[in-house]
Amino acid sequence: MSSSFGTLFRISTFGESHCKAVGVVIDGCPPGFSLSTEDIQPQLNRRRPGQSALSTDRQEADQVIILSGTENGKTLGTPIALQVANKDHRPKDYGDMLDIPRPSHADFTYQMKYGIRASSGGGRASARETIGSVASGAVASKILQEKFNIDIVAWVSSVGQIDASPIDSNVITRSDVDTTIIRCPDHEAAAKMEKLVTELKERGDSVGGVVSCVIRNVPIGLGEPTFEKMEAKLAQAMLAIPATKGFEIGSGFAGTRMQGSQHNDPFTKKGDRLGTTTNNSGGIQGGITNGEPIQLRIAFKPPATISLPQETVDFSGNSAILEAKGRHDPCVVNRAVPIVESMAALVVLDMLLRQEARKAVQF
Amino acid sequence: MSSSFGTLFRISTFGESHCKAVGVVIDGCPPGFSLSTEDIQPQLNRRRPGQSALSTDRQEADQVIILSGTENGKTLGTPIALQVANKDHRPKDYGDMLDIPRPSHADFTYQMKYGIRASSGGGRASARETIGSVASGAVASKILQEKFNIDIVAWVSSVGQIDASPIDSNVITRSDVDTTIIRCPDHEAAAKMEKLVTELKERGDSVGGVVSCVIRNVPIGLGEPTFEKMEAKLAQAMLAIPATKGFEIGSGFAGTRMQGSQHNDPFTKKGDRLGTTTNNSGGIQGGITNGEPIQLRIAFKPPATISLPQETVDFSGNSAILEAKGRHDPCVVNRAVPIVESMAALVVLDMLLRQEARKAVQF
Amino acid sequence: MSSSFGTLFRISTFGESHCKAVGVVIDGCPPGFSLSTEDIQPQLNRRRPGQSALSTDRQEADQVIILSGTENGKTLGTPIALQVANKDHRPKDYGDMLDIPRPSHADFTYQMKYGIRASSGGGRASARETIGSVASGAVASKILQEKFNIDIVAWVSSVGQIDASPIDSNVITRSDVDTTIIRCPDHEAAAKMEKLVTELKERGDSVGGVVSCVIRNVPIGLGEPTFEKMEAKLAQAMLAIPATKGFEIGSGFAGTRMQGSQHNDPFTKKGDRLGTTTNNSGGIQGGITNGEPIQLRIAFKPPATISLPQETVDFSGNSAILEAKGRHDPCVVNRAVPIVESMAALVVLDMLLRQEARKAVQF
Amino acid sequence: MSSSFGTLFRISTFGESHCKAVGVVIDGCPPGFSLSTEDIQPQLNRRRPGQSALSTDRQEADQVIILSGTENGKTLGTPIALQVANKDHRPKDYGDMLDIPRPSHADFTYQMKYGIRASSGGGRASARETIGSVASGAVASKILQEKFNIDIVAWVSSVGQIDASPIDSNVITRSDVDTTIIRCPDHEAAAKMEKLVTELKERGDSVGGVVSCVIRNVPIGLGEPTFEKMEAKLAQAMLAIPATKGFEIGSGFAGTRMQGSQHNDPFTKKGDRLGTTTNNSGGIQGGITNGEPIQLRIAFKPPATISLPQETVDFSGNSAILEAKGRHDPCVVNRAVPIVESMAALVVLDMLLRQEARKAVQF
Repeated sequence: MSSSFGTLFRISTFGESHCKAVGVVIDGCPPGFSLSTEDIQPQLNRRRPGQSALSTDRQEADQVIILSGTENGKTLGTPIALQVANKDHRPKDYGDMLDIPRPSHADFTYQMKYGIRASSGGGRASARETIGSVASGAVASKILQEKFNIDIVAWVSSVGQIDASPIDSNVITRSDVDTTIIRCPDHEAAAKMEKLVTELKERGDSVGGVVSCVIRNVPIGLGEPTFEKMEAKLAQAMLAIPATKGFEIGSGFAGTRMQGSQHNDPFTKKGDRLGTTTNNSGGIQGGITNGEPIQLRIAFKPPATISLPQETVDFSGNSAILEAKGRHDPCVVNRAVPIVESMAALVVLDMLLRQEARKAVQF
Repeated sequence: MSSSFGTLFRISTFGESHCKAVGVVIDGCPPGFSLSTEDIQPQLNRRRPGQSALSTDRQEADQVIILSGTENGKTLGTPIALQVANKDHRPKDYGDMLDIPRPSHADFTYQMKYGIRASSGGGRASARETIGSVASGAVASKILQEKFNIDIVAWVSSVGQIDASPIDSNVITRSDVDTTIIRCPDHEAAAKMEKLVTELKERGDSVGGVVSCVIRNVPIGLGEPTFEKMEAKLAQAMLAIPATKGFEIGSGFAGTRMQGSQHNDPFTKKGDRLGTTTNNSGGIQGGITNGEPIQLRIAFKPPATISLPQETVDFSGNSAILEAKGRHDPCVVNRAVPIVESMAALVVLDMLLRQEARKAVQF
Repeated sequence: MSSSFGTLFRISTFGESHCKAVGVVIDGCPPGFSLSTEDIQPQLNRRRPGQSALSTDRQEADQVIILSGTENGKTLGTPIALQVANKDHRPKDYGDMLDIPRPSHADFTYQMKYGIRASSGGGRASARETIGSVASGAVASKILQEKFNIDIVAWVSSVGQIDASPIDSNVITRSDVDTTIIRCPDHEAAAKMEKLVTELKERGDSVGGVVSCVIRNVPIGLGEPTFEKMEAKLAQAMLAIPATKGFEIGSGFAGTRMQGSQHNDPFTKKGDRLGTTTNNSGGIQGGITNGEPIQLRIAFKPPATISLPQETVDFSGNSAILEAKGRHDPCVVNRAVPIVESMAALVVLDMLLRQEARKAVQF
Repeated sequence: MSSSFGTLFRISTFGESHCKAVGVVIDGCPPGFSLSTEDIQPQLNRRRPGQSALSTDRQEADQVIILSGTENGKTLGTPIALQVANKDHRPKDYGDMLDIPRPSHADFTYQMKYGIRASSGGGRASARETIGSVASGAVASKILQEKFNIDIVAWVSSVGQIDASPIDSNVITRSDVDTTIIRCPDHEAAAKMEKLVTELKERGDSVGGVVSCVIRNVPIGLGEPTFEKMEAKLAQAMLAIPATKGFEIGSGFAGTRMQGSQHNDPFTKKGDRLGTTTNNSGGIQGGITNGEPIQLRIAFKPPATISLPQETVDFSGNSAILEAKGRHDPCVVNRAVPIVESMAALVVLDMLLRQEARKAVQF
């Protein structure tokens, strides 16, 4: 059940990087709304490798098909199975790595946990596993957008030591984000980031970065204390993405250095609701949304697979030099943008459905 | 079900700050091991307010009783109900806040979500809710320690702008941590932190901080990809603690600024297993433990309840000045130390049980 | 988590027959509705032993207290902990049975499963465990009744070979049921049943029986295909009651002997909805309620604990004669009536909340 | 999540009768054991329509493919996606039924629950939905058989008024069962049953029946009190099968007519374990297996879709005569045999894994 996520809008993903197909089953999708592959494909396209010179050269069409759960373009309320075929699988590339576990990759831990592992290495630890999340997240996003006007936008805010200038998260759009290949809307910083990634690709090295995300127009009252507080489920969702090492909501770690009198968000009247004048809370107080934008930052480590030779040991403990030959990305943050948006959408829609159930029977 | 946590070792907590009792039901505790209140009380004592001049003056005995699930000091394998009576409840202290939601507290969001809230404000958003987690976490810790030699130690690594020097996380003990009131084992930094907190208490202000945590001797192979990766469940667990704003595993946000060739943890032979020479991964690769210590950092914002007057609005949107009169902590990180340890224990034991089930039927 | 039940209205029960207390935590109870112990106590009184000469002589007050989740008599939407103290525990009565597992009781299986068991024998297999279900079921029933006009009535339809005449399940009330001690509204049959039970009590033997249950005014559309069909969750709920051996919905086993042309329930116009002219379906089609009354029958075996000497073996396999000395009921069906009603209420309310969530976001 | 079932071995099914494919994702399958389509196909063949003159004429190849979770014929421990294409879909056959809900079918309730329904009627209420359960149940059965020597055999014990003679459930095999088309090992009764079904097929009517099932060599100690007692989960599993109306374990409803002194199963020494001389308990006491065979009986109503004209009303409430034209089975019990076996396997394996987790950490 660990490949499932959500309570009322629940996804179950499947697939390794070199099996026949990867995909997802969505259980609990609301019935009667329009759904076609065109609603899903754009986010898969933003996720897939080979979009630009910055990422791996693998050409994967990643065309999604809808196997079940819709008829005449409408959802039936029944499980929606989405599938993407694995076309380009060249397991021989990974041959060298059979005996030498790649440092900081999942080869070793998968082998130890399961007593077996896919020939390609991590299997489910592959970024390819995220196709199921992105496909189902696109469905969730569509419902949130069309029915509740909630929108979710992520972007790259740093790559290595290069930080983007602050973005106005109230207005940024996915189109803005896509104006640069690296998906950083600060064009000056973006140019530096792209240059760095290109250099690292040539050197056979990799680099980390930070993805920021805003969720706007969230209704007040979403999130389920105690253990399914909105930020707790968002944290789980984001740390489930491969290569993530950190999560911040609102003021994050910077907030720990502040005093309460600075950090507190005073209330103010905003139209017919209360809002806050600042948003150090990041849109959540006590685990429950307060109507302000939810603001997240997610840390991605440098990809583990690099071509530079690495001194390590093989599975038997013998010294070895590993030079990875497979295709790999020097930096994953631009491709992570739609993944972050998708995970956010899955959390928010599930919480929204749960709150609707409560409201419907309130006394 | 959002007040429940865990799959095989599952807790369900209950209680607000001013009801008759708070507590927890543990479902799935292994049978036949010794358990008495003495196993649980020490962590509750470390959590409770009034331990020192640094925290609120409320004197709460917080004596735990075991209602069910044991006989003759042994666990039966049946649900263990643990309960702590609420003795000191003075709701009148909170009277002023009925009309004015405290900035950055949960008064507003609880009221909006449920259409009702406890007179004391946040109800379940109170730190008192964590008693259930700490009591059940103490049970989990005991099993981990006695049966598997896994130990978990947390400490304060920063308060406001004051950072402790790096700690050797391989050897630090809970006793080391408790040598200072602020629970920072760097005594020089601790003195500064305590001075700051005392000043802020006098000023009626508050401050944030960071709690670090290490989990040692974790078996290789724990964690359930994809959505219940070890770091994902730890992130959920930590962000479910009141006042948390951030989470890091291993290199965390600092790792985003590094290159793969620096960040990767090369394998090496360590006794009869493979280990790594560095630990940027923080003990987890691909969502699965690799045998190295798990290293976490959790960000706590400054407590929202301060005595300094705050300009805000009341529930109706009218301008108001709030001067909180209740008792409150200027800094929560020292009391958060056992909470962090408890949440970590709950995650690790649950993952361990799940992996044991897998190993038992492995082909 | 096996002592928890429900998805959105979720209970977690605890307690053996001889620990300090038994009880339940309700998670997901709708906020803002009136709740006091008076809403819960009547069903506990109907469940408790010692109500009449027909049942065990143990006098258990079974007074419920509300520990959390309400304030000023209103639910807060937070977990509601309900507790009943265990007052009359005389473990010495069970002394003889320590070495000889009672035939058809849970002594043996609990010992084998957990490697330990409560001195009283089954521990959680005791009927006392049902207090948590009945207390939480009373809360669910109140919400169903007051907010949705759904009512649930169970009664005894057979004891041993004595069958009651068919009851009009459209009009029967709990008051009707309580007009006889055995809770069979057919007074003539009830007299025979009570005579039989009295005789068996004197002989030290026991007898089984059937409890029927009707759930009226259920909204159309409740039940979650595929594995949480309404009848599937009702079946789980009923077979979780101690001593149950069978379950029927609608035509049940008798329906297997019919032909489709006889068994099908033709549709007809009933006010502003479609209804059916017959109800072999028992109010459910395809796992989803159709607006007709849900009709159940649950089989209860004769209680396993009897005073008549039984030839058996002890735990070591040596021949032994067991003469149980403890207090025990010769027939449990009359006390099972409120348990059946409670389990039904828990299922229906949970399904209702889940359907409300769906309706709220329907396109 | 209602299309998911199980805790550690968890399935999620998808697919309607006329979408592109039906299937299942298995999460939590033990790693490292051999698995190919040959392990799965036989049970799908036993389930599929068109096996004999007794069932519908639809020819559905129902060839399963494994999309993920295995490599080189071994399970990886990752989610296993199984899929069967829908080849023969002729929605026009159902055209007449668009306006007239079939009596006792799910057309009406699906429409009312979801506000939309598949053109073929019930969609997920179709027997075709059971393909996912049967495919995953075959995987579970293989593990139970090969690793634990547990075998599960179901057979038809009655059709309409025709009852088979008692079967020796200690020795019956699937081969025995398959010696007759109707899957009743009592050949004399089978001949009568087949004759009846043939007649009903000609008349356009249908008939119900009972499927019995035995699970042998179950380890002592499986089943999770309180709400996931072995019989409770089996009851849920069986009542989730389309067209089921009743469930019995052990003595079932007949046991309600007995006295405790007759019904109790005395213990006896059986090799190195305790067993019982009779088995009215049906292999389960207090929700936990006792090592004796688990014995079940499941009631199937006559199929709702018949060709005989039926007086009913359309969705608008107008009188109508329905003459179903589609292909349909006059009796489903023979095809239900592998479905019952599959659901039983899913429950038993999940319970076994959960008990193994407990045993592994027992003190």
